This record gives sequence, C-alpha cells and structure tokens, in this order.
Amino acid sequence: MDLLEGIMTRRSVREFSEREVSGEELEKILAASSRAPSGLNNQPWRFVIVRSASTRGQLAALTRYGPIIRNASLCLAVFLDGNAVYHHVKDCQAIGACLQNMLLAAHGLGLGGVWLGEILKNGAEVRRLLEVGEDLELMAVLALGEPKGKGEETDRKRLQELVLKEW
Amino acid sequence: MDLLEGIMTRRSVREFSEREVSGEELEKILAASSRAPSGLNNQPWRFVIVRSASTRGQLAALTRYGPIIRNASLCLAVFLDGNAVYHHVKDCQAIGACLQNMLLAAHGLGLGGVWLGEILKNGAEVRRLLEVGEDLELMAVLALGEPKGKGEETDRKRLQELVLKEW
Repeated sequence: MDLLEGIMTRRSVREFSEREVSGEELEKILAASSRAPSGLNNQPWRFVIVRSASTRGQLAALTRYGPIIRNASLCLAVFLDGNAVYHHVKDCQAIGACLQNMLLAAHGLGLGGVWLGEILKNGAEVRRLLEVGEDLELMAVLALGEPKGKGEETDRKRLQELVLKEW
Repeated sequence: MDLLEGIMTRRSVREFSEREVSGEELEKILAASSRAPSGLNNQPWRFVIVRSASTRGQLAALTRYGPIIRNASLCLAVFLDGNAVYHHVKDCQAIGACLQNMLLAAHGLGLGGVWLGEILKNGAEVRRLLEVGEDLELMAVLALGEPKGKGEETDRKRLQELVLKEW
C-alpha cells in the first residue's frame, strides 16, 4: 500500500475477525512503533502485549469499550516510562507518534485497530493487572486484529478551519 | 513509496535544498495531518504556515535550532486549540499523531522535515510573533523542505527493551 494512500485511508477498526495477528505481523508493528521520533531521541514508549483471553477479559472490565478488547485477538498496552521522561508534553506527543506508526503499520499489513484512551481513568488498575511498576504511566491501549467489515468514517474539519494564518 | 517502508525509512531532515515546497505538496501534507485520530474526534490541531523569510528569521531567533528554520523553505507552527481541549494528555498525543502523519506524508512526497520542540520554551513569544490568540498552545514547529543530503541515522532501542511483558 502506498504511504500517502495509507495515511488517508486508515480508519479506526472496532470489529475483528477470529484470525489472530501473527508473531511476524506483531514484530513489524513493533518495529514501526520504534521508528517514531521523540525529543532527544529518548524513546519513552514501553509495551505490554496482551493476547490471553482471560487477561483481555480483565482489561475489558476496566473500560466502557470492553467489548472491543474482548473481540480483538491482540491488545497492546502502551506506557510512558517515568525513567525516560524529559518533558511530559513532548513525551506524550512522542507516544502519539508511536501509536500512529503502529496503527498505520497495521493498516499496511491489512490489519486494523483502534486507539483506546478512556481506560486511562483506570491507569493504576491496569498497571496492577499487567504487573508493571508505578514508574510506568498508562498512555493508551491498542486493540488490533483483522478487520471485520469496514472501519467507521468520521468527519474531518476542512483545512480552512485548521489553518489560522499564513505568513 | 510503500507504507511500511516509508515508516521505517523516514528520518529527521535538517538540511534543505533551495527548492520550495509547492502549494500542492503543502495541501497533501495538511490533508494527511487531518487524518490523524483524536479522542472523541476533537481534532484539536491548528496550523500557522510560515513561508516568509523575514518571519522565519524572527521565529529562528526563538530557538537554538534557528539555522534549520532559516534554511527550510516552509515551516508549520502547530498549536493545540484551547477551545477544543478535552483531556490535555490525550490531546498532546493526538497532536503527536498529527505531526507524525505530516512527517510521513512529506517523506512520501520526497520531501523531509524535522519536528522542533525546543522552541516551546518561547511559546508565548511565538504566539505574539505569529499573531495568534492566547487560547492557542504551541505544540511544535515543523521545518519542511527538499532534503539536501541524507537524513541522520539515530539509534533505536531493541524491541526486547521496549516490551515489558507478554500475557
């Protein structure tokens, strides 16, 4: 798939077939994540891979979007490593770039996914469930899989609304 | 360019040829930016386009990376719209995804760029210079152009360092 076409056609995918994401596909998605830029190249992103249905079930109970987590064959919990932080705003932006790389890579592999943020309200419980230390701040959960049906269209603002001024 | 290949081969570009980024290229980069995901689809990103050499010169004076801004034919100042904010961390992540889409789109067009964050320390001065309101929070400046020479290689952590656990 072409790069520009991929950026323009990626959609959030919330329903998945039963096919599992392969180890090879996961490796490509993680390799893509690590190519994101970060301030001072601090690469503050850390991942917990969640394939187990029972762990996904417990994770699902921590967000109103639980059905998506139960339905996806693979979830990635993405954390900001407190030991790598140098500027919280820039680190959160870097994590966003990293998440976007993963979503685009999944799209390029014929997979799909959705970035779940509502679960951040239960960040501490997610940490305890996944047994990671308090120095890890939950940033998002990605649910990934083979799309069932089309992703959902969402409106976008017109460029005239986004460009404030030209110099 | 292939999507996965594009993600893996994008590098920060800090030196540019004299060729200007065309209006058509800029439009594609902005279209890509707006396809980023955001929480509740709030699309909090706003842009100021800076082509003018004199305005770029004044912008350059506000960061130690000024020479890059002077050398790039096009800069984009990216702001978070305080009127669109719903959760600052998630909004900063969405801006990161938006910036990454722009950098990837530029790469796909044979252009290159770099995400400048150090200038955030002078966010208020940038706002005054570009004449945008106080409800706009500076998130980054992108310097874009046709690469002169190769982008710089930067190390990446091994995936074993990034994956904390598997469930």
